[in-house]
Amino acid sequence: MAGSGPTRVMRDGATTTRVHLGHGLEVGGGGFVVVAGPCALENAEQVEKTVAAVAQAGAHALRGGAFKPRTSPYAFQGLGEPGLKLLAEQGRKLRRPVVSEVLDASQLPLMVDYVDVLQIGARNMQNFTLLRAAAKSGRPVLLKRGFGATLDEWLLAAEYLLDGGNEAVVLCERGIRSFDTTLRSTLDLAGMAWMKEKCRLPVLVDPSHSTGTQSLVTPMSLAAAAAGADGLLVEVHVNPAEALCDGRQALTPPLFDGLMRALPPVLSATGRSLARAEALHAVGGTR
Amino acid sequence: MAGSGPTRVMRDGATTTRVHLGHGLEVGGGGFVVVAGPCALENAEQVEKTVAAVAQAGAHALRGGAFKPRTSPYAFQGLGEPGLKLLAEQGRKLRRPVVSEVLDASQLPLMVDYVDVLQIGARNMQNFTLLRAAAKSGRPVLLKRGFGATLDEWLLAAEYLLDGGNEAVVLCERGIRSFDTTLRSTLDLAGMAWMKEKCRLPVLVDPSHSTGTQSLVTPMSLAAAAAGADGLLVEVHVNPAEALCDGRQALTPPLFDGLMRALPPVLSATGRSLARAEALHAVGGTR
Amino acid sequence: MAGSGPTRVMRDGATTTRVHLGHGLEVGGGGFVVVAGPCALENAEQVEKTVAAVAQAGAHALRGGAFKPRTSPYAFQGLGEPGLKLLAEQGRKLRRPVVSEVLDASQLPLMVDYVDVLQIGARNMQNFTLLRAAAKSGRPVLLKRGFGATLDEWLLAAEYLLDGGNEAVVLCERGIRSFDTTLRSTLDLAGMAWMKEKCRLPVLVDPSHSTGTQSLVTPMSLAAAAAGADGLLVEVHVNPAEALCDGRQALTPPLFDGLMRALPPVLSATGRSLARAEALHAVGGTR
Amino acid sequence: MAGSGPTRVMRDGATTTRVHLGHGLEVGGGGFVVVAGPCALENAEQVEKTVAAVAQAGAHALRGGAFKPRTSPYAFQGLGEPGLKLLAEQGRKLRRPVVSEVLDASQLPLMVDYVDVLQIGARNMQNFTLLRAAAKSGRPVLLKRGFGATLDEWLLAAEYLLDGGNEAVVLCERGIRSFDTTLRSTLDLAGMAWMKEKCRLPVLVDPSHSTGTQSLVTPMSLAAAAAGADGLLVEVHVNPAEALCDGRQALTPPLFDGLMRALPPVLSATGRSLARAEALHAVGGTR
Repeated sequence: MAGSGPTRVMRDGATTTRVHLGHGLEVGGGGFVVVAGPCALENAEQVEKTVAAVAQAGAHALRGGAFKPRTSPYAFQGLGEPGLKLLAEQGRKLRRPVVSEVLDASQLPLMVDYVDVLQIGARNMQNFTLLRAAAKSGRPVLLKRGFGATLDEWLLAAEYLLDGGNEAVVLCERGIRSFDTTLRSTLDLAGMAWMKEKCRLPVLVDPSHSTGTQSLVTPMSLAAAAAGADGLLVEVHVNPAEALCDGRQALTPPLFDGLMRALPPVLSATGRSLARAEALHAVGGTR
Repeated sequence: MAGSGPTRVMRDGATTTRVHLGHGLEVGGGGFVVVAGPCALENAEQVEKTVAAVAQAGAHALRGGAFKPRTSPYAFQGLGEPGLKLLAEQGRKLRRPVVSEVLDASQLPLMVDYVDVLQIGARNMQNFTLLRAAAKSGRPVLLKRGFGATLDEWLLAAEYLLDGGNEAVVLCERGIRSFDTTLRSTLDLAGMAWMKEKCRLPVLVDPSHSTGTQSLVTPMSLAAAAAGADGLLVEVHVNPAEALCDGRQALTPPLFDGLMRALPPVLSATGRSLARAEALHAVGGTR
Repeated sequence: MAGSGPTRVMRDGATTTRVHLGHGLEVGGGGFVVVAGPCALENAEQVEKTVAAVAQAGAHALRGGAFKPRTSPYAFQGLGEPGLKLLAEQGRKLRRPVVSEVLDASQLPLMVDYVDVLQIGARNMQNFTLLRAAAKSGRPVLLKRGFGATLDEWLLAAEYLLDGGNEAVVLCERGIRSFDTTLRSTLDLAGMAWMKEKCRLPVLVDPSHSTGTQSLVTPMSLAAAAAGADGLLVEVHVNPAEALCDGRQALTPPLFDGLMRALPPVLSATGRSLARAEALHAVGGTR
Repeated sequence: MAGSGPTRVMRDGATTTRVHLGHGLEVGGGGFVVVAGPCALENAEQVEKTVAAVAQAGAHALRGGAFKPRTSPYAFQGLGEPGLKLLAEQGRKLRRPVVSEVLDASQLPLMVDYVDVLQIGARNMQNFTLLRAAAKSGRPVLLKRGFGATLDEWLLAAEYLLDGGNEAVVLCERGIRSFDTTLRSTLDLAGMAWMKEKCRLPVLVDPSHSTGTQSLVTPMSLAAAAAGADGLLVEVHVNPAEALCDGRQALTPPLFDGLMRALPPVLSATGRSLARAEALHAVGGTR
């Protein structure tokens, strides 16, 4: 394997690469960034209410899936372009970057019209065609760890992006598979901390997909903050019981507000704080 | 999850779906099918020598990768279209169907010009865009199980193909990840047998990628035959020590010849035999 | 770890260590040995009927648990010494060695009064006190692989027995844990074949506990035979629906008889056959 | 499985069971408890220096193994009784409870002469004979999760202790096995948080064995504190490079001191604090 290991992503000194997500927001510069929104974009009312609530509670960026990678062909597959329009509109209104998942290289021209940050999901972490194309997209990429991927494979998937010319890469730990299926996945926080040691890219944690359990989202978010993660990717739904996708793991807006109030003291305990961005001040998404 | 389970792929009665692979060869009709060739197509000499040897030993179909999904961006990525041309030429000459991996939906127009059977690899088992596009390609699909995929997820990935209008689907068990990393993967033969019970599609076994170990390819091939698999996907290289990809698991031509001689008595012990096809008779790759 | 690897168990040349189990039966000498009986000894009628049936069908040795390691304290814990008496009586009558599980070193004086072969179960593979005591017991030991144990750890557990002075050790692969919980465990047949290459001890396969599924016991038994295992450990119950323990995986006597008829041709295909023993001839448990 | 689930260990309301460990120290009452010391007791000087340092830094209880469950029979197996004497002596001197691992029921009479808390290790979590005997020992039990055990199996192992009459049970998450072997185990903090929801027993976290990596011990300790664990079990060695066992994961005394200074603000952020005990005040175990 001589010459085939990761080199561009490896840390050299203490500095984490700062990645600009849009609207003046950066991740990796020390401020803790919270990306929140619904798992799937369902309709105008759900999108508007949910993202308004998360922005009000202090979320720094907005997320929502328009193209959903569903295990079954008969499950809700997402709104497609109309969903992207709804999300982009809210991003402009709330002056926050929006993040959405791209499933295939062929969707990139459409995606870059609407989203600030391209999410590459767990199932696509080793979709090398998509990685190469996303590297040329001109957009920052949020690269989730595959649920069956080792830490080294995750490093090398990120290396594809940097080798392709895109330095704006953010990683996201979202749980791996293990023999214990009590929870949806096994959140590998120590793996996240290992990545922070080895790799110069910012690393977020997704406490929602990893646990699949609403009541564990806040404890795992605080644990991620204490362990040194650069931020979170959290699912919020105005009415989890009626969510078309993954309702069991979504926070309600009041629970999300509670999480946003619980984070600053934990961050402060380790000498950190929530990120601040110009745009966020303007709409009063304070803290 | 009501209404979202697999329905089209489920077995109804004892019959396995017969899938025609080309050149008169079918899998699922009772005859045991052996697909063999190099992991990666490297150059004209390597391709020609290897496939000539495997055809001579009785392989029913030829395999070889032109686009390789490599963990590292710095590893050999495959010959691309020139590789496909070499493989297709040998297929015509030896009158055997050729199988090669497609990495992305955008490659399909190119692939269908050269290959009889489209392989969708483990990393792409849940690349739903590719599954939907492959369903419309008019070619049979060999769908490998993801190394992090449950049996139900594999069933549902196949369901995407059938729901998209393609009934010509062959499955291939290639090992899953477990805590024991002594071997490359953990070959799940019981999972293969479970699939044969539940699913009406033919199931092959890949003893090469699963074990990653040359000396275990023959014992696992015989085990697969005894356990009821519909065939094998085996890697052979004229000179494993110099292979550009996965040489440690490749059989040499003499070892492959030994495997082809060892299979018939094991198949016979369970009332089966190697597949026979019109075309194969013509070139004398009998047994 | 210098100096701490396995040495006594490693293979040196082609020969497998022959282990005498009692009543003239040996395993590792080429003959394929089938150990069968109920998961748990429940009562005189169940024991007698089951072992009579398996002996009639040709089983070489009899198994049955008197002390059951149950996940819950409220599940049936086994008959204890009365169960051992029932099993020992049948062993004498049918002239076959009996195998039963020992849970703790303190049970050894009792166990050696009744059983020919001491089984050390998956949960106790690294119970080092038990391993050391069993090494001094004067009885052959059947050491099952832990469901969370790597192949190297299994080798080293066997090394404890050999280092303690007991050369009469038989290994048994019984499945490991993986993320896929469709079946009870993931049977690691390639791991068994790897052990046969590296280790000089005989290796059995347990198709019952590994799959937890009656219909998969026969295919996995044939696969084990084709892949080179030295024998099987199979659960049989006269009435699986009423079994106090693990009924879903037990064969009925007619299914077991079918398995015993299916094995010889598969063994013959790889140049082997079922074991024969003096004692077995005497009671006509032929084949 | 009707009637065989856990009942005694299940939470009923918000209260965690308070377990007295000795010397006035309790766990589960809200105060965060840190148990620290060397992996293995090696000699008088190492024991004395290490536990003096951890007590000085504020550890509430002392740990050290006299009987080591080693994968290889040729690895250092522990000092045995002389080690227990050294540890007990330091416990009396520093007025702190001592914790040490019991490997087998036959060791219990010896252990109770020297230790305040019996540790049952990962490999013995389902050693049911040991669980039953420990339940009758009159000592509190620290029950580590097996590295191959599900959360339900861990609950049921604890149920054996409570059903046997011992209410003084403390759990300890120490990492599970997964396909990613970059780190020693995969620390399952979400599983710990799930246990805190379901089970009324206190739960500690072992950041040392789980990660196997010195530099990850502090981040994972802080994460455990933020996520609601009741305390930690941490390995400290005066000279990790010369440790006879697991030196790579041991903190040095200065690093441990840093951890003890880092914990209070994180605990305070979630409304908690380090435990205080009468005895600890007396020897100036500050904070």
